[in-house]
Amino acid sequence: MIQQELVSVGQYLAQRLEAIAVKHIFGVVGDYVLNLMDILLDSPIELITTCNELNAGYAADAYARLNRVGALCVTYNVGGLSLVNAVAGAYAELVPLVIISGAPSTSQREQKLLLHHAAGDYNLQLSIFEKITVAAVRITSPTQAARQIDLTIATCLRERRPVYIEIPSDIVTQPCPLTEELDLPQAPVFDRQALTEAVEEAVNLLEQSQRPIILAGVELHRYSMAQQLSLLLEQTGYPFATTLLGKSILSEMHPQFIGSYAGALSQDYVRQRVETADCILCLGAFMSDINLGGFTAQLPEIRLINANSDKVKIKHHFYYPVSLADFMAGLTAKLQPKKPQSLEIKPAKDSFSGTFEIEPKQKLTNARFYKRINHFIYELEGDSLVIAETGDALIATIDLVLYGSTEYIGQALYTSIGYSVPACLGAALAAPQRRPIVFVGDGAFQMTCQELSSIIKHQLNPIIFLINNEGYAIERAIHDGVYNDIQPWQYHLLPQVFSKRKLGEPNQVPSFKSDVWSCQVETEGELEQALEKAKMNQDSLLFIEVKLDRYDCSVGVQRLGKALKASK
Amino acid sequence: MIQQELVSVGQYLAQRLEAIAVKHIFGVVGDYVLNLMDILLDSPIELITTCNELNAGYAADAYARLNRVGALCVTYNVGGLSLVNAVAGAYAELVPLVIISGAPSTSQREQKLLLHHAAGDYNLQLSIFEKITVAAVRITSPTQAARQIDLTIATCLRERRPVYIEIPSDIVTQPCPLTEELDLPQAPVFDRQALTEAVEEAVNLLEQSQRPIILAGVELHRYSMAQQLSLLLEQTGYPFATTLLGKSILSEMHPQFIGSYAGALSQDYVRQRVETADCILCLGAFMSDINLGGFTAQLPEIRLINANSDKVKIKHHFYYPVSLADFMAGLTAKLQPKKPQSLEIKPAKDSFSGTFEIEPKQKLTNARFYKRINHFIYELEGDSLVIAETGDALIATIDLVLYGSTEYIGQALYTSIGYSVPACLGAALAAPQRRPIVFVGDGAFQMTCQELSSIIKHQLNPIIFLINNEGYAIERAIHDGVYNDIQPWQYHLLPQVFSKRKLGEPNQVPSFKSDVWSCQVETEGELEQALEKAKMNQDSLLFIEVKLDRYDCSVGVQRLGKALKASK
Repeated sequence: MIQQELVSVGQYLAQRLEAIAVKHIFGVVGDYVLNLMDILLDSPIELITTCNELNAGYAADAYARLNRVGALCVTYNVGGLSLVNAVAGAYAELVPLVIISGAPSTSQREQKLLLHHAAGDYNLQLSIFEKITVAAVRITSPTQAARQIDLTIATCLRERRPVYIEIPSDIVTQPCPLTEELDLPQAPVFDRQALTEAVEEAVNLLEQSQRPIILAGVELHRYSMAQQLSLLLEQTGYPFATTLLGKSILSEMHPQFIGSYAGALSQDYVRQRVETADCILCLGAFMSDINLGGFTAQLPEIRLINANSDKVKIKHHFYYPVSLADFMAGLTAKLQPKKPQSLEIKPAKDSFSGTFEIEPKQKLTNARFYKRINHFIYELEGDSLVIAETGDALIATIDLVLYGSTEYIGQALYTSIGYSVPACLGAALAAPQRRPIVFVGDGAFQMTCQELSSIIKHQLNPIIFLINNEGYAIERAIHDGVYNDIQPWQYHLLPQVFSKRKLGEPNQVPSFKSDVWSCQVETEGELEQALEKAKMNQDSLLFIEVKLDRYDCSVGVQRLGKALKASK
Repeated sequence: MIQQELVSVGQYLAQRLEAIAVKHIFGVVGDYVLNLMDILLDSPIELITTCNELNAGYAADAYARLNRVGALCVTYNVGGLSLVNAVAGAYAELVPLVIISGAPSTSQREQKLLLHHAAGDYNLQLSIFEKITVAAVRITSPTQAARQIDLTIATCLRERRPVYIEIPSDIVTQPCPLTEELDLPQAPVFDRQALTEAVEEAVNLLEQSQRPIILAGVELHRYSMAQQLSLLLEQTGYPFATTLLGKSILSEMHPQFIGSYAGALSQDYVRQRVETADCILCLGAFMSDINLGGFTAQLPEIRLINANSDKVKIKHHFYYPVSLADFMAGLTAKLQPKKPQSLEIKPAKDSFSGTFEIEPKQKLTNARFYKRINHFIYELEGDSLVIAETGDALIATIDLVLYGSTEYIGQALYTSIGYSVPACLGAALAAPQRRPIVFVGDGAFQMTCQELSSIIKHQLNPIIFLINNEGYAIERAIHDGVYNDIQPWQYHLLPQVFSKRKLGEPNQVPSFKSDVWSCQVETEGELEQALEKAKMNQDSLLFIEVKLDRYDCSVGVQRLGKALKASK
């Protein structure tokens, strides 16, 4: 039972968000949502306004990846319809978001008035959100509001996907009677016998194998199963790799971690070790084109045990409905440890031991830049958070070995460019103890650049590497044309535009938290100076424009190109 | 019959766009649309790439308002779903757009592969566009392509609203057999008898009236009926006003033009003259809240003849289907001229005769700024194009009297903020002989600021007034709260970021076309210097940040506030 004093519908919604640990809500103001925003301002939830709604969507998405759930508050049509792409991405990548939209009042709707922001049909926004959420409702009566809100939020948490709640402006402030029995998230019902059989068959296959491997995927993040994975690894001694979406599920310094796997995009050893394993235990992974290196991955079904959140597939048969957590617990209980020497484990952490010798006058290359960065992440004090933008940056970060409890965020299935800068805002607010390190290409940056100003406004301390190779590098690698060229900007001047404060001078130690630094680097020596500054100024934002050659792609893209050529 | 040589589906589509006078197509590259973009590059149509898809949508919308039709080319989901808000706006405001999206190949769709940019359902984007267009198709076979393309484009032109064509990547380059009989836009069938009766009743009412008035709306723009309006005015001598969406349908120096009307937002004389008319002939207007000054307009049905594109409503009965053009022609043929003295016409052009006395040291106010600007538009050589951003700028421009053939663009029904800067790009390309004059608030500017870089890239010559009052001024006027405040930017530095060229120095005459000027003005004297510069440098872009007080709203908003208070 929750508190019984009479609250308004808006207050009830704010309480329910608070109850599921939403501490920040992202959005943009608009007249249909003003009274709801007033209620949010009076609640313990902090309202984070962004420059536009798409950016609010990306910010809330990244927030939810770290906080387990995120929320948005926008106005009718011009607000909500600007969110569609971000919400489709969250839907695709299992990100739970509660999207709240204002709407015309009940009487305006009933009179069918032709209102601003209207596009003819009052149901337009609701009907579009029905397609990109797992539940979409309009609150049409205060007496039903509590039940509708509870059911919708419960669906969000259970299905780990976005939901949509539309509130006509007159309903927001009306009293919200509470129902006796509130609906709570229902655990799905699983088939215990199917589970027993699945565990048995999987254990047999794994025990017979000589060189098994575990491939850890995105669902382990979304269903918070790092601990279960850790126990399974400890018990069996098996090596493991992650997909891109599964990256950073455990510390990549783990002695059994061999690297991130994405078919021909991966390093040679990782690819060879995964693909030649005589049994591949795939846990919570999406079999998508990018996770599988443009479908270059060779994971033959005959050697594959593929477990997802609610089913296990072995060879060509399914066990369903089976809980992934129960399946992993079953394996941990039954499997025997294997001896390390037979497993051929080359830990990823060994790949960057030793120091990195810089050549100060040398022009930076893509390969050398990311190698240096891997050491830099290790050198940084405290926890970090790597955010990789869609495109070459996403692929380049496959090779990074993430230190300690460093987290990783990349939109590796939906791959909408422009995600990373707004995502940095959301992630930094969700995990203030982690310093974000953002890798963003110039083409993607131009999409959503204004959200850098919100990052400055909230005095956050990310290190943003703007990789400038004058266009859409990844599209050039696929198929070149003038459409891949973009207007050259003087990116390093932008922080000055977004901040009233004077930027820090190169040789001056900033003395207060909100300092913003910005520079352009073109040689290894210049990069070194910038990294030094980043380490010395833990609380400052550093915006580092890294100038690379036009066609200088990541090693991963080069590997993929070579593999595709060889297969012809 | 069009040419019979064998072309590919993509080439056929490009030819059809060319045939309906599309000279520029807006979009952003993506891998599902690369081969179509190659075909567009080889066609006479110019591909204009923008920083993001929403901005491409706004640019194409403004382009279509001047060019009668516009076109977009984007990639699957991440591209198309970012367009939704712009397309809903075009749908609401009768703007014909042909939206072309790339898509996964037929075999990828049939195998149901989990691809990047996918959100689960291959039909997602198509099913969303069905809701915001008048026709949405996926080309599934080259043999049907020509017919599908023709029907879809014909629907766009007939209904004056967006349409959507999705082309799987494998279909683009396949040969496109032409059908014998190609479908052409069908003229709708009207009821001649209903027309005769409608004209008769309207003529009777108008002849009996002493002080009639014509209120001209948006459909006269969209159906290109300026000439018909002009003939009707000439024949009758009646005064006329326009709604905001109908603004600039004829030169506002016309001796019968009394001003723009929007209920309590309008000037006192305009409001009084329209609302006290004994017969109001409303032609092609939307009865929407903003057109009607937040429904403060008093246009009693007993005195109203309300003609739209396909119907005429008099008092409480309809004539349908009746063509607006035929109805206007019928009135012009039958009505007698009325004597000017009985009509009480105070031409709008008289309101700003004489010179404007500046007070150089005086801090700029909203009211004085727009008064000065009205003279400035008159002083400019050549044709102009006023683009008013949603918000206070839109309302402030109600009072502008537009000189000569100056055009006016404002998204006055759908009112999505952020429209004007991308719209400036599209409009300038559609009408290169017109110099755009943009009024954009700081809140709206932050939404889509990056498109300023495309305006610079294409060496366009707008004058952009960035009205900086540190937040969402119009929302403050409705309901104030901290959510209306935004991060202060140093806006005038942005052109420097977007341009590799050095900005013009204040006292230096730019010597080549692509020069970009930028300044901040706070007093009337500073504004005067900036305007002088704008007049002297016809081919340069001028970006003028106008600093106003936080709560300094347009006179129109003040009038509305007063009227709402008085009515309580």
